[in-house]
Amino acid sequence: MSRNENDPLFPNGKDDYEGEDYDVSQLEEHSHRPPQLVTQPRRYKDGTSIDWLYEEAAERERRRQIHTLHGLRGLLTLVSNSAQMWMVIVATGIGIGVIGAWLDVLVRWLGDIREGRCDRGIFYNQPVCCSGLDSGEICTSWQTWSEYLNVTSILGQSLLQSLIYVALAVVFSGSAAILVKTYAPYAFHTGIPEIKAILGGYVLDAFLSAWTLLIKSLGLALAVSSGLSLGKEGPLVHVSCCMARLLSKLFRQLRQNEAQKRRILAAAAAAGVSVAFGSPLGGVLFGLEELDTLSGETDVMWRGFVISVIAAVSLQYIDPFGTKKLVLFGVSSVTDDVWRAFELIPWITLGVIGGALGSLLIKLNVRFAVYRRNSALYQWPVLEVIGVSAITAAVSYLVVFLRVQSSELVANLFVECEPSRPDYHGLCNPTALWRNVFLLVLTALTKVFFTAWSFGMMVPAGIFLPTIAIGACLGRAVGLVTQDLHRAYSDAWIFSACPSEQTIPCVSPGFYSVIGAAAMLGGVTRMTISLVVIMFELTGALSHVLPIMVSVMTAKWVGEAFGKEGIYPQWIALRNYPWIPPHEYRDRDGRLTTASVMCPVSQLVVIEGTKTTLGHLEQLVRSYDFNGFPVVQEEIFLGLVGREKLRLALEQLLSERSPTELAQECTFINTYAMSEPDLIDLSSLMEVSVLELRTEVPLELVVNTIQKMNLRQILFTQQGKLMGLITKSDIVDLLTVHLPHRAALADFVENRRG
Amino acid sequence: MSRNENDPLFPNGKDDYEGEDYDVSQLEEHSHRPPQLVTQPRRYKDGTSIDWLYEEAAERERRRQIHTLHGLRGLLTLVSNSAQMWMVIVATGIGIGVIGAWLDVLVRWLGDIREGRCDRGIFYNQPVCCSGLDSGEICTSWQTWSEYLNVTSILGQSLLQSLIYVALAVVFSGSAAILVKTYAPYAFHTGIPEIKAILGGYVLDAFLSAWTLLIKSLGLALAVSSGLSLGKEGPLVHVSCCMARLLSKLFRQLRQNEAQKRRILAAAAAAGVSVAFGSPLGGVLFGLEELDTLSGETDVMWRGFVISVIAAVSLQYIDPFGTKKLVLFGVSSVTDDVWRAFELIPWITLGVIGGALGSLLIKLNVRFAVYRRNSALYQWPVLEVIGVSAITAAVSYLVVFLRVQSSELVANLFVECEPSRPDYHGLCNPTALWRNVFLLVLTALTKVFFTAWSFGMMVPAGIFLPTIAIGACLGRAVGLVTQDLHRAYSDAWIFSACPSEQTIPCVSPGFYSVIGAAAMLGGVTRMTISLVVIMFELTGALSHVLPIMVSVMTAKWVGEAFGKEGIYPQWIALRNYPWIPPHEYRDRDGRLTTASVMCPVSQLVVIEGTKTTLGHLEQLVRSYDFNGFPVVQEEIFLGLVGREKLRLALEQLLSERSPTELAQECTFINTYAMSEPDLIDLSSLMEVSVLELRTEVPLELVVNTIQKMNLRQILFTQQGKLMGLITKSDIVDLLTVHLPHRAALADFVENRRG
Repeated sequence: MSRNENDPLFPNGKDDYEGEDYDVSQLEEHSHRPPQLVTQPRRYKDGTSIDWLYEEAAERERRRQIHTLHGLRGLLTLVSNSAQMWMVIVATGIGIGVIGAWLDVLVRWLGDIREGRCDRGIFYNQPVCCSGLDSGEICTSWQTWSEYLNVTSILGQSLLQSLIYVALAVVFSGSAAILVKTYAPYAFHTGIPEIKAILGGYVLDAFLSAWTLLIKSLGLALAVSSGLSLGKEGPLVHVSCCMARLLSKLFRQLRQNEAQKRRILAAAAAAGVSVAFGSPLGGVLFGLEELDTLSGETDVMWRGFVISVIAAVSLQYIDPFGTKKLVLFGVSSVTDDVWRAFELIPWITLGVIGGALGSLLIKLNVRFAVYRRNSALYQWPVLEVIGVSAITAAVSYLVVFLRVQSSELVANLFVECEPSRPDYHGLCNPTALWRNVFLLVLTALTKVFFTAWSFGMMVPAGIFLPTIAIGACLGRAVGLVTQDLHRAYSDAWIFSACPSEQTIPCVSPGFYSVIGAAAMLGGVTRMTISLVVIMFELTGALSHVLPIMVSVMTAKWVGEAFGKEGIYPQWIALRNYPWIPPHEYRDRDGRLTTASVMCPVSQLVVIEGTKTTLGHLEQLVRSYDFNGFPVVQEEIFLGLVGREKLRLALEQLLSERSPTELAQECTFINTYAMSEPDLIDLSSLMEVSVLELRTEVPLELVVNTIQKMNLRQILFTQQGKLMGLITKSDIVDLLTVHLPHRAALADFVENRRG
Repeated sequence: MSRNENDPLFPNGKDDYEGEDYDVSQLEEHSHRPPQLVTQPRRYKDGTSIDWLYEEAAERERRRQIHTLHGLRGLLTLVSNSAQMWMVIVATGIGIGVIGAWLDVLVRWLGDIREGRCDRGIFYNQPVCCSGLDSGEICTSWQTWSEYLNVTSILGQSLLQSLIYVALAVVFSGSAAILVKTYAPYAFHTGIPEIKAILGGYVLDAFLSAWTLLIKSLGLALAVSSGLSLGKEGPLVHVSCCMARLLSKLFRQLRQNEAQKRRILAAAAAAGVSVAFGSPLGGVLFGLEELDTLSGETDVMWRGFVISVIAAVSLQYIDPFGTKKLVLFGVSSVTDDVWRAFELIPWITLGVIGGALGSLLIKLNVRFAVYRRNSALYQWPVLEVIGVSAITAAVSYLVVFLRVQSSELVANLFVECEPSRPDYHGLCNPTALWRNVFLLVLTALTKVFFTAWSFGMMVPAGIFLPTIAIGACLGRAVGLVTQDLHRAYSDAWIFSACPSEQTIPCVSPGFYSVIGAAAMLGGVTRMTISLVVIMFELTGALSHVLPIMVSVMTAKWVGEAFGKEGIYPQWIALRNYPWIPPHEYRDRDGRLTTASVMCPVSQLVVIEGTKTTLGHLEQLVRSYDFNGFPVVQEEIFLGLVGREKLRLALEQLLSERSPTELAQECTFINTYAMSEPDLIDLSSLMEVSVLELRTEVPLELVVNTIQKMNLRQILFTQQGKLMGLITKSDIVDLLTVHLPHRAALADFVENRRG
């Protein structure tokens, strides 16, 4: 606390603001320092939060300066300025489309190689190896490993196949883990929690490096094809953001401004989802709903839309699966595309199961993650990955539905039984009903366990696909049971809406799979609209959008009964990122007030603005690493001075002077400096964008203001006097205080004040 | 201006805020007035804006009071509290589903009756009348009017048919206009601009009355079936909102709180779109993108999702068209669902046409609306409707594509030519190419003119369907030309991607229609994502989502070159509603600053807070109708006192006293009142949620803060001193100043200050 009670009360500070145009450079002219201090881009350390208002102001200033340029130069600058943003958008869209396609091909090949090889060359995957055959012809080019090595005994064949299957799983996952651990630790996990935090203003530049891009792509292919229970969807969003970040480094306007950087990232995230699911609309909506950054900013939404389209077009052009379609898991409906009211019962049941099991999966995953950090496993991440993948592979080899890759399983569960199609492992055999149901439930439960464990290990891992697979198994099981009930009691009144001819199937178990998948995803991610859009872009089941909506609705309701947060906010809390959930804060019992959350002025480090010394300021900057210091005159609040700005100014001022001049006096009041020429005028160091509220203001409004305006702090004044301060960190603490494992995996310790 | 320069400078006002819990009732206890003054719902006159912060605070306080109730009563209140909201949601969803279905049936019947009647009874429409026939059998039950009246000569038939056609058009539209003019003037037009404004905080209770609901539904059916170039989509949103408003009147929490009321309305609007297009997802996204109210508020988005599903399920259950599908204009694809790169050329062309023609339509419509208001037509709205519908009917009867209802035209343009399907007016005849193209373009241009005129007359009118019809005609024309080019030059390299067999069609003109419709809608409404979703929920053309996105993208770009605003913001500006566009404000040339937009303190009516008289306050309230008055002490800003709150308090205080006590002194400083017991303490009248900024703050941030926080005003202080004020109206003026016809159709004159 530095107060000089003897300073004059009221300088006549009127003529420095009235009718004066706001202009950073003009403000600078008043001061003793060169102007580059403000126009210089502000640097943030990893682990801090950006100052949105500052970044937005800097961007506006840059844009305004472009508009002041005249003639050809002005026009060219203007054009190149908007062209740069769009170039990054287009290049990222194309790039992520290419990477997505390349990943599909790589994963497919690596997965196939675990079972056999092509005699036309090892680099062919099974479909390519067997292409060009007439239907019905048997593919002889593709050989299992036992065929290739001429093992004839059945026991020998099984042993050899399973050994290679497990061994390659271990090799793949192990190399993924080593790559991640050695070259890019931030390439582990899904990346979506980090992206949410970054888009909210968190600074974590290491997370979006070129190494991360490379390792995450490569590791992802290895991890997915090792058969670990994880998907590639979330990580693709991360990869897409890395790529956008790299490309935007080419242009100064995008490199230097943190707000612009985040706008590009928000659009790139949409492209990631677009490619991951072949779902351009779903991508935009994912950005809108889950990342919550596009809202309000129509420009960003629009760019997300464009980048999504470009990414999807690139993917479709490359066409990695050779289907010429974006729809990944096409649903073939053999029924008349009409659903009956009684089906709402199994569908709502699936919603309930999805909500409950999703919450269980979240809880298990958090528990496992905390256990991992606190146990010996934390020291041996690669060993853990190898062990888990060996166990996963061994167990998976035993259960027929687990053995194939999740995407293949899902694709087969989504389609209906048709005479023209080969029966997938006896799924369509009505006499094997209970065996199928048992196998499906077993598969689902095993996957819940493995997913809860694997999601968080030292490999790139997405949670979408495993969740879809779990839901699809359960959905199919419920569908099979419903179908059997209909077969057995087709005359019951509840089935009266079914067509009377027994030949027309009434219940489509494949579609129940889709419902189950949607419900399970709803339970885990708590998304709603974007989820529905992704599901039907994924399946093409547009006619069944209502049942999907109903089940997602139920899943969300049931899930929220077990805890409001989905898996991503849970991980954000685990890692203690300063991210504020978008939903409305409600202080139910009214115990907390703004005054009780606020850091009162008596505990703040404030600067007496009338007169102080450079030495004192220098000491403040050295002693505290708060983001800024409030400046007061008596108790009247004058403004806020940012720590970084102050540090730079002091550095310059003190380097010009001899060290003995630490006693040189300075002031933050402009008019005061004019009347006393000895004083150095620091008034232009104060932030212009400072929000003040009264202390009686409801806490909910404070939270809401910080949420919506992306503020780092709000100052509280009463009759002009400074009363206290609330920072973003205070709000994050307030909103995450109910989560049990908060900050259990934190890397950075946040500055709590200032 | 009321300043008393002799008042003491600094009262020690510390102990009335520090650590004190914020509690409305507690604050009340300090004062001389009974507490109901604050807990009473605030009333707003039509034409004003609500105080969001106040309403939110009131709602939070209500919720908090419920949570303080204990035992069974507390539980019951809690349950009934959330049940009420959901009951309104469910009932509105079902209600609008029923109304939508009923409207479909009514419009169909009224439309058919213009051409003939059913001999099984006049109340059958054509499809019902002809149902139950085997395919190929000719429907004899349905008779044209000339058949019914046994007119045999061809001339007589034509004359009679056209006469009845025109006469009934006049009767229908005339009665619609009379109904609207007599009973519910607010039932005219689409209603979406008003809903946007209301959701933003505008007060217009007459707009959502029971009469409006009834007249709009009825008038809509009459207007649409009269063949005027208008649709029922926008008005259905209005009807849905009316219904939600009526149902929410049943419950006090929804009736009394303006913020809660708007949350229900936002959800209801989604249901309207859901039913209008059979597009539940599109409804939610429409709310998100066009109404821009759901953003940020996950609760509202979620309710919109639920209500959309319920409305769509109800509509599907009633199944007015007997198709058992929600998809209105099903697209049948005869091609292999794959599109070729060369097709991007015609599609982007369609995007350009849609963007340009859409802008033209907007411009024409605004011109016509302004002309109507300033000409003699304004006195004779019913006559205008009758005249225009007679002309429309007469012209429409001559052009084969105009004669049918727009929905029928669109449905036929969207389907492909197939041998199994009857050829629609020779559209599939390749030899009649140029006749078809001419007819389609003629239809489109006629419709542009008629739509531009009709949208704004004294009848309920939506712009979606006519726009879709215009776009579909142009799309089909472009498709036909492309198809012909392919036929003629099938060996050209540009068509090399087409299948080599001539029997497989390469170009699908029906799908070009869909693209054209999407582009045109994009040009007129400037929606993007919601538009794409609506288009493919409307057509089921999920596999072609990319081309639709590309054309909408192009249309938006081209459209924005002619002006940023879509048709709804233009109408909002025409009617001068205080609505702030959601997009970011950019002051390109930097001429405007906060200080130049701000109303400086010298022009404000301020209250000297230290000591004033009841008489003076009473005179202020009587003389000015600003929303509030700033209270200052010397120049230091103390707070803002709302006019309504002040008026009520004064009423009560003065009614207790004799009129001579107008000289009774009062103060707004709590501690001051304590030391001088004669003074009446009015400090609790001051608003708690007041936002203060510095005057140097960039104007963009001011606009952004008012946008995001839904503020009515921002106060500017400097070192505690009040400098000025910017209100929502100032910002609306700032953002609409470039629109030429701003306020040309305004009903209310806004308060400019306070």
